[in-house]
Amino acid sequence: MKFLIIGGDAAGMSAASRAKRNMADMEITVLEKTNDVSYSACGMPYNIANPERDIEDLVVRQASVFRKKQGINLFTGYFVEKINSTDKKVSGTTDQGNQFEFSYDKLLIATGGSPVIPDIPGFNLPGVMALKNLDHGRKIKAYIKKNRVKKVVIIGMGYIGLEMCEALQEQSIEVSMVKPGKTFLPWMDSELSDIVKKEIKYYKVKIYAGYPIDRIESDNSKLKVICTGLTLEADMVLIAIGVKPNSELAVNAGIKIGINHSIAVDSHLLTSDNNIYAAGDCADANHIVTGEKTWIPLALRANRAGWAVADNVSGKNMELPGIVGTAVFKVFNLEIARAGLTEKEAKKYGFNPVSVTIKTSSRAHAHPGSSTIWIHITGDKKSGRLLGVQMAGKEGVAHRINAVAVALHTHMTVDQFSQTDLAYAPPFGPVWDPLLTAANQLLKKL
Amino acid sequence: MKFLIIGGDAAGMSAASRAKRNMADMEITVLEKTNDVSYSACGMPYNIANPERDIEDLVVRQASVFRKKQGINLFTGYFVEKINSTDKKVSGTTDQGNQFEFSYDKLLIATGGSPVIPDIPGFNLPGVMALKNLDHGRKIKAYIKKNRVKKVVIIGMGYIGLEMCEALQEQSIEVSMVKPGKTFLPWMDSELSDIVKKEIKYYKVKIYAGYPIDRIESDNSKLKVICTGLTLEADMVLIAIGVKPNSELAVNAGIKIGINHSIAVDSHLLTSDNNIYAAGDCADANHIVTGEKTWIPLALRANRAGWAVADNVSGKNMELPGIVGTAVFKVFNLEIARAGLTEKEAKKYGFNPVSVTIKTSSRAHAHPGSSTIWIHITGDKKSGRLLGVQMAGKEGVAHRINAVAVALHTHMTVDQFSQTDLAYAPPFGPVWDPLLTAANQLLKKL
Repeated sequence: MKFLIIGGDAAGMSAASRAKRNMADMEITVLEKTNDVSYSACGMPYNIANPERDIEDLVVRQASVFRKKQGINLFTGYFVEKINSTDKKVSGTTDQGNQFEFSYDKLLIATGGSPVIPDIPGFNLPGVMALKNLDHGRKIKAYIKKNRVKKVVIIGMGYIGLEMCEALQEQSIEVSMVKPGKTFLPWMDSELSDIVKKEIKYYKVKIYAGYPIDRIESDNSKLKVICTGLTLEADMVLIAIGVKPNSELAVNAGIKIGINHSIAVDSHLLTSDNNIYAAGDCADANHIVTGEKTWIPLALRANRAGWAVADNVSGKNMELPGIVGTAVFKVFNLEIARAGLTEKEAKKYGFNPVSVTIKTSSRAHAHPGSSTIWIHITGDKKSGRLLGVQMAGKEGVAHRINAVAVALHTHMTVDQFSQTDLAYAPPFGPVWDPLLTAANQLLKKL
Repeated sequence: MKFLIIGGDAAGMSAASRAKRNMADMEITVLEKTNDVSYSACGMPYNIANPERDIEDLVVRQASVFRKKQGINLFTGYFVEKINSTDKKVSGTTDQGNQFEFSYDKLLIATGGSPVIPDIPGFNLPGVMALKNLDHGRKIKAYIKKNRVKKVVIIGMGYIGLEMCEALQEQSIEVSMVKPGKTFLPWMDSELSDIVKKEIKYYKVKIYAGYPIDRIESDNSKLKVICTGLTLEADMVLIAIGVKPNSELAVNAGIKIGINHSIAVDSHLLTSDNNIYAAGDCADANHIVTGEKTWIPLALRANRAGWAVADNVSGKNMELPGIVGTAVFKVFNLEIARAGLTEKEAKKYGFNPVSVTIKTSSRAHAHPGSSTIWIHITGDKKSGRLLGVQMAGKEGVAHRINAVAVALHTHMTVDQFSQTDLAYAPPFGPVWDPLLTAANQLLKKL
């Protein structure tokens, strides 16, 4: 049994390791286009924040471990160009310019995602960087050091942009964020996104929303981001507009493509080709709240999907129910989390959403050190179902969202959620957990 | 409509306030035996920890607010001695020695719980204290100050005992804990309870488990706790053996009594008498995991049950599904949490429990500041159901337990729980949330 995997990041290496544990005699080959496998991509902003830390710390497991200890054929610097699904072969070119070809019984496409780079002049200038893979991280870190970067413009205001603005600010680098859209965080309730904006501005980061970017120019080692009505100078520009699925190989092989140009997979992670699976940021997923396909690049999903593919190629029958879009991130001293749908998304999927936003305390009455927690909660007026929650606060946000995630998995109503026996102790929250207070308030409108 | 409430703490005052909001013209009377209403009982150890803080800070709402702003007849110092359910009257004596009698249409017994005081010589000596109501808190705080207490023996090792050992140690008071039982925390997996013990010992608190207490003696303002094979000296002794439901009034009125001598109530909080409800620490509850009655004194349940009674006497139809036994507390730098059943409890209720204990990290690979999280997880071999979780760690424990609580409410299997989309970001946990890693490990044994 030949199990071939394209891509050696979260999904690919999870699949390889688990398949080998499942069946020691399986012939497992991984083809990775870069020279890095198995690293913590999400850890990059935090590593970049500290010039003393080695970026190589982010490597979870060395390639040699996979090769020698696990017996996986791991080829790095192998760029796959074509899948021939009729002959069950993949071919491509190595970073030394050699041609290669591998055959498979079962194939996993785990090609991940790439940063969206807009087709605007100057985005390929030296000092204009993106951050997705470890090599990007290396380059950014080296560039900051070598060029004594003091001023950065971040284009885009997604998770990575927000995490990077903190990472850079911690090194006393002046940061501006700019994007064409007028709404700072369009997926977040405005009351909550105002809190995030306030936190970012407190750390002297400048936010310019609503400025279409015309071009980037270089002028004596200085870069200029030229927008309609605004020009921002920088030593380095970071593009953090978003990520797109790497699905070209699948497209060219005639495999069915799904939402947002991701590869369509079923609950077994199987594509439209019976011998080809897809997992990770290149593949779509079932959204448990809507029951429809979605594409949200998430590290946990990538790892879990890798495992599921390994189980399925090992003869088990592993189905993944899907995701509820849980995400958490940190911006300076704020924890921000979400799970489920925004009101806008809920409307799009035919729900009749009703929301409330509440403000409550992170600790019990009279307990010292308490801060504010903001919660925006959305339910469906027709069915009473809980649809989504967004939270922001200095403490007690990151892990609390998991209660919402579990509730969304089971299609709980807001009423049922409001009756859950959540934990209470004065250092950790009020008697009525903030989530229960939010649910109780929402119930009045449902 | 006359709604009479015995007890002005969490359940009683929640019921009074909500009933008044529901129906402004309802005649609501509360009879409270002490002079305190609506205070944060759970906040007492944290308040006692700081001599600078006024114990009165714990009062959430003054009696005068209930009386004047809410129009509730609130009698403090009114000790109810008898319920005459035939004539729908209650009678008793005030703290000034006067007799009183009130009639009702609907009655709520919200008499709470009392500390268990063993029938052993010396438990009534000056300096031997218990901690349940605000007056106990006042007395302890005053006693420590007046007698310059430097040495305390705590009898019992429950939540309050553990919280108080920290509260006292923070004031440089030498603390010993003693109890007859040999197991330090019998409801906790031994690997986890060893972690708690280690933490407590690090702060120089001495733990003596397995010493039956014979008597307490007084000797020149010093107290001596005399156990079999051990004598401990103290300036003050704190009894923290546990709490029992105050159900005597109900017993004498012929109302049906349930588990642990608590008042048996149905899902509407109605007792065996159609006009009498019970709520709070005096009443039992449905345990959602076992489907059987249980008695666990919990602040959230008391508040929620008070609300539900108010809704039911206001003509609504409010049912409470029950509890899953979620609890969290802090001991020095450790967060400790549980939800659901221990293995022993699971066996008692006919499950076939299987458990694993895992150790994982509170933050992602290579993220600075990470510490260890211990999780003990139990599932049922027959049904695959998740039965309970215990956790301990320096961070990421208190709110994470809520995901388990929600899962238990919906009778999730361990397999289903292992597939939930829990949040991930490097500062807050590994890609595989500690709870998912625990569930994955348990799955191998199910």
